[in-house]
Amino acid sequence: MIDDRVGCAGLFAGLDAIGPLDEAAMAAAAAHLDRLTKPPGSLGRLEELVITLAGITGRPDAPVARRAIVIAAGDHGIAGQGVSAYPSAVTPQMVANFVAGGAAINALATAAGASVIVVDIGVASPIPTVPRHPVQRTRGGRLVRARVADGTGDISEGPAMQRADACRAIDVGLRLVRDLRSSGGLDLLGVGEMGIGNTTSASALVAALTGEPVARVTGRGTGIDEGTHARKVAAIKRSLEVNRPDTADPIGVLAAVGGFEIAAMVGLILGAAAARIPVVLDGFITGAAALVAAAIEPALPPRLIAAHRSTEPGHAIVLERLGLRPYLDLDLRLGEGSGAALAMSLLVAACQVRDEMATFESAAVSGPVELTSDGRRPTDD
Amino acid sequence: MIDDRVGCAGLFAGLDAIGPLDEAAMAAAAAHLDRLTKPPGSLGRLEELVITLAGITGRPDAPVARRAIVIAAGDHGIAGQGVSAYPSAVTPQMVANFVAGGAAINALATAAGASVIVVDIGVASPIPTVPRHPVQRTRGGRLVRARVADGTGDISEGPAMQRADACRAIDVGLRLVRDLRSSGGLDLLGVGEMGIGNTTSASALVAALTGEPVARVTGRGTGIDEGTHARKVAAIKRSLEVNRPDTADPIGVLAAVGGFEIAAMVGLILGAAAARIPVVLDGFITGAAALVAAAIEPALPPRLIAAHRSTEPGHAIVLERLGLRPYLDLDLRLGEGSGAALAMSLLVAACQVRDEMATFESAAVSGPVELTSDGRRPTDD
Repeated sequence: MIDDRVGCAGLFAGLDAIGPLDEAAMAAAAAHLDRLTKPPGSLGRLEELVITLAGITGRPDAPVARRAIVIAAGDHGIAGQGVSAYPSAVTPQMVANFVAGGAAINALATAAGASVIVVDIGVASPIPTVPRHPVQRTRGGRLVRARVADGTGDISEGPAMQRADACRAIDVGLRLVRDLRSSGGLDLLGVGEMGIGNTTSASALVAALTGEPVARVTGRGTGIDEGTHARKVAAIKRSLEVNRPDTADPIGVLAAVGGFEIAAMVGLILGAAAARIPVVLDGFITGAAALVAAAIEPALPPRLIAAHRSTEPGHAIVLERLGLRPYLDLDLRLGEGSGAALAMSLLVAACQVRDEMATFESAAVSGPVELTSDGRRPTDD
Repeated sequence: MIDDRVGCAGLFAGLDAIGPLDEAAMAAAAAHLDRLTKPPGSLGRLEELVITLAGITGRPDAPVARRAIVIAAGDHGIAGQGVSAYPSAVTPQMVANFVAGGAAINALATAAGASVIVVDIGVASPIPTVPRHPVQRTRGGRLVRARVADGTGDISEGPAMQRADACRAIDVGLRLVRDLRSSGGLDLLGVGEMGIGNTTSASALVAALTGEPVARVTGRGTGIDEGTHARKVAAIKRSLEVNRPDTADPIGVLAAVGGFEIAAMVGLILGAAAARIPVVLDGFITGAAALVAAAIEPALPPRLIAAHRSTEPGHAIVLERLGLRPYLDLDLRLGEGSGAALAMSLLVAACQVRDEMATFESAAVSGPVELTSDGRRPTDD
């Protein structure tokens, strides 16, 4: 069980302890892979994925059929400082787009066979109603209304949220994992986010938690110019001066410079990890949430799968701190869980290899030869 | 039309000329992507794939529905020198496994929605009959019997094949593309291979065509130990001394130190490229075939999609020479078209984004804001 000294009294009380990966299940998965008709290890990181899933779930044949991508959405007061290329109005518009089925994540989640759930955890304005996107193949998302507040405060002037609100947002994430498990089940959880201004908050969080210089962890977000980037760096520096977050208190750091969607992801990640459900992280903001979660529960990181490395410079730093090697490197910088969906497809393909291939024995394929010391085969004579 | 001075009199006469990518189609695809509800370019290399497909096919909405992975299979006389971890008997056994549906490529091609075609272009012994793999979801492969010879000669002692046989094997590849196009159609071609000993031939080809030192382009293949690797390097050096291939004569190089499956892939690649069908390369051996094809037709490389970078050290050199940046880097070293199948899934996902997303207008999502010089938005007042 997570030590309750982290704050949010009692919040983590219902969770199972997060232990180390199941070595026996990993060894069994590796032995199974070596019986399949391919040179041992020749599918590289695909095999690593199968073994990691076994370690997380405790099952060499970990199921992956029930897949969900949860997108947490929230607004950021700091967006008023002109740190983003897009206005805050885009947050609720994109939430509506996720529900209607018209966003990139809808196409990518459909390709990955995953359902999409959107949580309004702190959007600042009403979610508009948008008609169902006309493309029939693409799935719409389910909207969960769980708004804790209408966006965060401006972190360059004060805290993002009250500590109690950070705990409430984490609790929404924890509850959502429970709900998904009890209604239909959950084998694989992808996490993503939406929130204009949230690369600014994520950079502030990462700078606060890692001690890295602000300039090193701050990138171009959705695509800002040099002047906007300079304003963004300055705003983050101010947020750290004004709030003076204490690294030893991860929930305090989250409340000071984080965001509601980041807090909800902390809950999603910890809730799934405690239930031995593999968590597929998306990009930089998701990574910042994982960093907070790992500060709360240091045993967490091996239970996370880093989908990709984004173009945000802070993301590589986050992944290094978490000890995670990303599976994809496609210059993505969209968020929404888009990279998580792509990696989920890879993961499913890896499990299809695991489940559907013949063994050397069943397919009557010869194994490696033993060579004599001069390099001739014993059978060459 | 490919200059017939390359040899194989008349072989390339029926092919259309391979011209530059269609810039107008690429610009139209890029403009379409920028209308979709995401920051411009934020899907990185996924967007690059959509634009590349447009350039190759001349269509901003390039179709990808009809996908095939062709695995060319052939044996190598050099395998008798103890350069591989597996005996040559594995080549026909694996061909039978591809047909039965039990190999990694069957699972991965099924995941990618691609059919599997296996061409016996130069296997040295009979293809055994294996019962259909019991996993119903996975597709079996179609076997094309087009054997030019029972494996190559030992390249450390003489040429792999006669020049006329190299031309015949290339012709099989060209004809197969024509057949696939006329029977059902072909939108996307993945190429893969099977042949015990073929990393040795591919390394010899790459050393001969690039002038790189043999040791730099020679790796561990299916997983050989240090002694076997030293023998492999020595055998390749001998093959270059014995055959003295002339870089200016790519078909001569192919006949001297190549393989039948490599020659068939040269035909597959050139045939598809001339028909404006995007070609998804697999790993090192496929890359060596592409290098031969590019030596025959220097306008070829932009029409190729490099699926991944394998662990074979020569592969990175091949990709660099072809000017191709791989999409995946997953420590794969299996061949069979396994990496091509994974990249095909990525490509299909990219096209689903292209075809299924809402536009800013249709979803009523705001575009980027114009910021005033002090960073405030015009609407902030």
